[in-house]
Amino acid sequence: MKNVTKILEGDVLAAATLMRGVEDEKPEALRELGLLFPSTGRAHVIGLTGPPGVGKSTLIDSLIYAFRKKDLTVGVVAVDPTSPFTGGAVLGDRVRMQDHITDNGVFVRSMASRGWRGGLSKSTISMVHIMDAMGKDVVIVETVGVGQSEVEVTKIVDSSALVLSADSGDQVQIIKAGILEAADIFVVNKADKEGAGNVVGRVEFMLGMRERLPNSWKPSIVLTQAVQKIGADELADEFIKHKEYLLASGEMEKRKKISAREELLKNVECYVSDFCNQEFASEGKLDDMVNKIASRKVDPHTSALQIIDWLGTHFKHLSGKR
Amino acid sequence: MKNVTKILEGDVLAAATLMRGVEDEKPEALRELGLLFPSTGRAHVIGLTGPPGVGKSTLIDSLIYAFRKKDLTVGVVAVDPTSPFTGGAVLGDRVRMQDHITDNGVFVRSMASRGWRGGLSKSTISMVHIMDAMGKDVVIVETVGVGQSEVEVTKIVDSSALVLSADSGDQVQIIKAGILEAADIFVVNKADKEGAGNVVGRVEFMLGMRERLPNSWKPSIVLTQAVQKIGADELADEFIKHKEYLLASGEMEKRKKISAREELLKNVECYVSDFCNQEFASEGKLDDMVNKIASRKVDPHTSALQIIDWLGTHFKHLSGKR
Repeated sequence: MKNVTKILEGDVLAAATLMRGVEDEKPEALRELGLLFPSTGRAHVIGLTGPPGVGKSTLIDSLIYAFRKKDLTVGVVAVDPTSPFTGGAVLGDRVRMQDHITDNGVFVRSMASRGWRGGLSKSTISMVHIMDAMGKDVVIVETVGVGQSEVEVTKIVDSSALVLSADSGDQVQIIKAGILEAADIFVVNKADKEGAGNVVGRVEFMLGMRERLPNSWKPSIVLTQAVQKIGADELADEFIKHKEYLLASGEMEKRKKISAREELLKNVECYVSDFCNQEFASEGKLDDMVNKIASRKVDPHTSALQIIDWLGTHFKHLSGKR
Repeated sequence: MKNVTKILEGDVLAAATLMRGVEDEKPEALRELGLLFPSTGRAHVIGLTGPPGVGKSTLIDSLIYAFRKKDLTVGVVAVDPTSPFTGGAVLGDRVRMQDHITDNGVFVRSMASRGWRGGLSKSTISMVHIMDAMGKDVVIVETVGVGQSEVEVTKIVDSSALVLSADSGDQVQIIKAGILEAADIFVVNKADKEGAGNVVGRVEFMLGMRERLPNSWKPSIVLTQAVQKIGADELADEFIKHKEYLLASGEMEKRKKISAREELLKNVECYVSDFCNQEFASEGKLDDMVNKIASRKVDPHTSALQIIDWLGTHFKHLSGKR
């Protein structure tokens, strides 16, 4: 309980300890997380995603300054991609974000992307809760990518931004439709470079195709030059404007429910996955089953129902212990 | 049983009926699928993926001709993307593939991409099994994309190809590392266009970074011009060479186990997801839980364990009925 109280007071060391515990799935950490949960739901949770190389980390760096000027405290959860091809550059950016290390109002936490099938991990959501409970006014979730994991991130945040750059022209068509549809704000970074106009045009074209209810939010396009810190104040203003829209329209309540549902189902998915790949696998049952399927002795549907049968028994046992 | 026998004899109508039943998750269809399962595992299953616009469908069209020249029968499972931005072009390509409609040795089946979180659907794997049971020598699974879903596809196929085109230079860095690492064959289509050399260079660079055990398969790069049917014979030969490598090295057996494991876990995931979003949701229990989480009355971990508890009871009941 001492740790929980400290975190609620904004203690960085206590928060970092809990975050490590949550990543390692220590039972004590999950218990503390449960105790913090009633104190969450106050922060403005922002999602920032986009292809690698568009300058997201530099943008977040300047965005932190912009929010701090407004006297808002900021937490950043940066999900590192596991790609060996982009890992290097991203690491450099992370170091840049540590510029804020002497500022008590800023807390940056990097984490490896984990989870059953490479999607949004349940730890990421827990990190947001911890920063929220610490009292951070704004929590930014940064992810690198344009696939299914990022579609999932859009569901757990209040405001979602897709960051592109002047070079993104040929990348736009690869981006998952779900991200394009969910983005509340589009950022075109490196706006002084050739190609920026083309990217803006493509985004405008897509937005024209999107159906919009009357009085609903009109997604905006913000031009930035993050390296020169140009456009960051406008972007911060746009996020705040979006939050005000969410609150005034009653949309915020709906988003919080979508987020709760996403987290709940993600947790179920993770418990099931952990059971299959850990408890069930360690007893050799999974390998036995896989071998029988591979040699066509049993079919995969019947086997799946068997696992679920065991699963129920296993967790009944577990909840009895709690 | 009559239907099952017909499918084993290669009857297209019976197969199409079962495929529809499987997509609609009819219990009778799942039972028939189970009866067919022992007769699967013989086809050479090929995965073909890549960004939209690289010419995959045209390539598959010419690849079908190449395999047919070798007197091999071919099945194609084409997973349509749900993207509203690329849907049109793909539809045109599908129509093109229907050129083979008068050829009994070719069976093309398009399906919408479905599934819990947008990943590989369990129906896709079932379609492969049905074509396999029909006696198709080669089954091609075509997906459009470069994200997590495609990483999953690489796990259920024997041979995996990533299709790029001369225009893909800027797209390469967005492609999920898992796809690049899993691809056995890289195809650079539109090889006569400017930029092809650049793309080949990027692929070679990545392959240089990949660690390779001695005597393991050396991923090849095949240049094609699908519209002119150039390179398709070489590509077919390369797939056959890869299959021979898999068989000779014992790698095929390993891949069949990876595929069985992937299908098994995917089935568990789908049963759990269906339970949460259907049975559990229809009784209003899911909404109740979500509302309590959104209003911070209960925490999402405790709620998830409750769902799993119900899940076990529900499926115990269900397997009792079977």
